[in-house]
Amino acid sequence: MNLTIIGLGLIGGSMAIDLRKREFVDHIIGVDNNKINANAALSIGLVDELCKLEEAVKKADVIIIATPVDGAKKTLPKVLDMIDNQIVTDTCSTKAGIHELVKYHPKRKQYVAGHPMAGTEHSGPWAAISGLFDGKATILCDTEESDIRAVAQVRRIYDTLNMRVVFMNSSSHDVHAAYVSHISHLSSFALALTVLEKEKNEKHIFDLASGGFDSSVRLAKSSADMWTPIFEQNKENILTVLDTYIDKLNCFRKHIESDESEKVSDLIKKSNKIKRVLQ
Amino acid sequence: MNLTIIGLGLIGGSMAIDLRKREFVDHIIGVDNNKINANAALSIGLVDELCKLEEAVKKADVIIIATPVDGAKKTLPKVLDMIDNQIVTDTCSTKAGIHELVKYHPKRKQYVAGHPMAGTEHSGPWAAISGLFDGKATILCDTEESDIRAVAQVRRIYDTLNMRVVFMNSSSHDVHAAYVSHISHLSSFALALTVLEKEKNEKHIFDLASGGFDSSVRLAKSSADMWTPIFEQNKENILTVLDTYIDKLNCFRKHIESDESEKVSDLIKKSNKIKRVLQ
Repeated sequence: MNLTIIGLGLIGGSMAIDLRKREFVDHIIGVDNNKINANAALSIGLVDELCKLEEAVKKADVIIIATPVDGAKKTLPKVLDMIDNQIVTDTCSTKAGIHELVKYHPKRKQYVAGHPMAGTEHSGPWAAISGLFDGKATILCDTEESDIRAVAQVRRIYDTLNMRVVFMNSSSHDVHAAYVSHISHLSSFALALTVLEKEKNEKHIFDLASGGFDSSVRLAKSSADMWTPIFEQNKENILTVLDTYIDKLNCFRKHIESDESEKVSDLIKKSNKIKRVLQ
Repeated sequence: MNLTIIGLGLIGGSMAIDLRKREFVDHIIGVDNNKINANAALSIGLVDELCKLEEAVKKADVIIIATPVDGAKKTLPKVLDMIDNQIVTDTCSTKAGIHELVKYHPKRKQYVAGHPMAGTEHSGPWAAISGLFDGKATILCDTEESDIRAVAQVRRIYDTLNMRVVFMNSSSHDVHAAYVSHISHLSSFALALTVLEKEKNEKHIFDLASGGFDSSVRLAKSSADMWTPIFEQNKENILTVLDTYIDKLNCFRKHIESDESEKVSDLIKKSNKIKRVLQ
């Protein structure tokens, strides 16, 4: 099987590693506008060759678009214009915009909208690792719009990556992604900004980070290129959940300020219920 | 050496494990008002015997108070009243209040104020693990108020636990702890509350958690018994940093709402600078 991966970063690169290792693909073709990333992916051995988009599409059986969402919105229609019988999927973190964009494309059935819920705070082909996806969930959206064989093929990819497949329509996906994943990133970015502003002594940040800061701020290392378009694409859902988040912080603020320890304790106990979900 | 540990939770228990394993102590005496915790600590083998406070203090060479800060404020003066030549230290996350409390105690010199910056989101003697402190920093406060031999003895404890020792006065400690550690917990508690409120479907939280939520919300599993008194004791510093945090979130909110992508991207890039400090 010939696989083309467009976007040779953490996600595309990590897919390449395990799809090759687990013998799902024989040959991987890479496409990336960023020459440094493209050459790195080739020299690390993530891909077997680099091609221009048109050639890469022609040579492929399956095409994975693993760029940030703004890039994918430009690339996907182009790729759909080029394909014959190839199957196309993407890995973008927001889905409703893309869904609208290609809804009436004559090749829509050959496209399967996907979002593997995995990542690290690192980016670029250097960040690609084996096992990134193991045991995690991947969301496939609006699969009724795709050919049944295309869906089956994309499922085989995620089976090979040891992912659980969850089905959702793209607008539900965007709501839930905002509620669970996107707000976590905002919370981390704002935390990093706060600490960098308040704490002028970097040595103190380093010394005190193991008191919890390190894990809460991990996501603040995530790339602006990936996250700016996500916040843009999923604006309405993100604003709603951000308002609730600011409300909750103001609740804590009010009770701490008024020395209402019991109410602070109640809020903490209520938040502890997240254990039940995540353990 | 006989060591008494008052408060047999994650911190006290993890100290017991490594101080014994690394042959710093011969005999560990445990004290805990919570009978379930005390008996668990004995049956797991964290401590060799359980005693009442007075007897435990009498038998000890060194006493570590590893309870939440509200308990420690009651226990420390009592312990100082009881000791002869013993050395006393604590592990509390806020230091200025305790400092004020025992400032003029005749045995003040035998007390060394400490705060090992380590922990997990779990609590209780069951959560105690070996290696918890390895490679992290511990803060010793106001050491000029302590006898030089008492400080040396407490340093040996933290050397045995493989911790870097950092010196600070207690009010600086509280400022920096609020700026780096306490705000992270608030941010996580509020995040858990938000997601539990917005996302009614727990299966979706579970599926989407690997998109970053899991690491940002880890601290929201932390105990109310420990954190309520911290927020109470360090109120002023926490309110200051919380206000900055809410400001930063509002900055993101404003720019996302107005589609000012470049400004969103600038904020993310600014927050990315945390990498420089933590990597």
